[in-house]
Order: sequence, then structure tokens, then C-alpha cells
Amino acid sequence: MIDEERLSETFAALANSTRRAILARLVEGEANVNELAEPFNMTLPAISKHIKVLERAGLIARGQRAQYRPCTLDAAPLEEISTWTEQYRPVWEARFDRMNDYLTDLRSQRETDEHDD
Amino acid sequence: MIDEERLSETFAALANSTRRAILARLVEGEANVNELAEPFNMTLPAISKHIKVLERAGLIARGQRAQYRPCTLDAAPLEEISTWTEQYRPVWEARFDRMNDYLTDLRSQRETDEHDD
Repeated sequence: MIDEERLSETFAALANSTRRAILARLVEGEANVNELAEPFNMTLPAISKHIKVLERAGLIARGQRAQYRPCTLDAAPLEEISTWTEQYRPVWEARFDRMNDYLTDLRSQRETDEHDD
Repeated sequence: MIDEERLSETFAALANSTRRAILARLVEGEANVNELAEPFNMTLPAISKHIKVLERAGLIARGQRAQYRPCTLDAAPLEEISTWTEQYRPVWEARFDRMNDYLTDLRSQRETDEHDD
């Protein structure tokens, strides 16, 4: 069972391009706040705020060493997002099926027209 | 290429359990605002606000007839969410692989111990 509140928190955390870029950076390996701030040209407090949102959503875990608390990616909430989204796959695939049917009809109609000429 | 702003808008629209429930209802077929409001025990203005958020994110399309403007689900933005999320599948699957390795090690350790007895 997916926890609705947790799902809302994850979706909200992902609704920001800087936060998504931080997650993409962490795929390459752990990084501390200074390292994360660098490519974004953001102040430390601004990046810290984003990291806190990701941490609350469980997308980032932080080391316990006082001076150096590196951030690591935790993809578990992303798997929940994936499970939720996959429910709708038949809906978007049906759209493609309808489009394919339409294109097939169009093609066979064209072939019939050519034979009629 | 995924449009970052559009992606943020979709994630934000999904960050609410009522809006997700509206989408789930629309899988069964089109519905108007009154029909959508009913199961949620919400006022029409409240449900209308949620519908507008979903409409702006492209998750809902509305009919053009003035008196009856049914809402239909458009799953296209959900496919984009799926594509974005799938990038992280290797990360969460690696986590399971590590857990499996750990359990396999534990099992073979236990078997060795039993043979030693």
C-alpha cells in the first residue's frame, strides 16, 4: 500500500528543477552542500533549503559526521512514484494504439485509392 | 527532451491526494464537475480549483459544450513523469541487488555453520 501523504511529499519535492538536478548529481556519488551548491550558482542557504525538502521526502540521506555530512541519493521514494505512475500506462498506451489504428486506416485507405486510380 | 517547467507543473499537480483521486476516477470515463465533487464530499468551488490545476498541467482536457463540459483524462504528462522516473530505476534496483547479495551471503554462511555443527 502506498502512503498517500508520503506520495504527496515526494511529488512536491520533485516539483522543482533545481531539486531534480541535485538528485541527478547524486547519482554520480555522494556530495556535501558546498559541492552541490557549486554548479547551481546558488547561495548555501538556498541550496540547504532544497536539500532539506529532499531529505524530508526521504530522497536524500545525510551522513552523521558533524563536520562533513555528505548527501546520498535514496531512490526508494522514486520507486513508489514509478509504481503509482505505471497504473496509467494502459491509458497512454491506448492513446498510441488509437493513433496507430488511425495511421493504419489512413495507409490502407490511401492504397485503396491508388488501386482505384 | 523533457520541458523542465512542464515537468515541475505536472509534479506539483500530482502532489495532492484529491487531485490524484480525480485522475483515478477519470480512468473509468469522462465526468463533469458535479460528478467529480460527489465522492469527495467537497464544495464545487474547491473541486473546481483542483480541476483547474490538473487542466493547467495538461492532465485533464475539458469538453467545449457550454452547459456540459466533461473532464477527460490526458495521460501524456504521466508518460513524461514515467520517463523521468525510469532514469533512476538502476539506482533502486542496485539497492535490491545489494540486499539480495547480502541475503545470499547470509544463507550460505548459515549453511556453512550447519555443516560445521
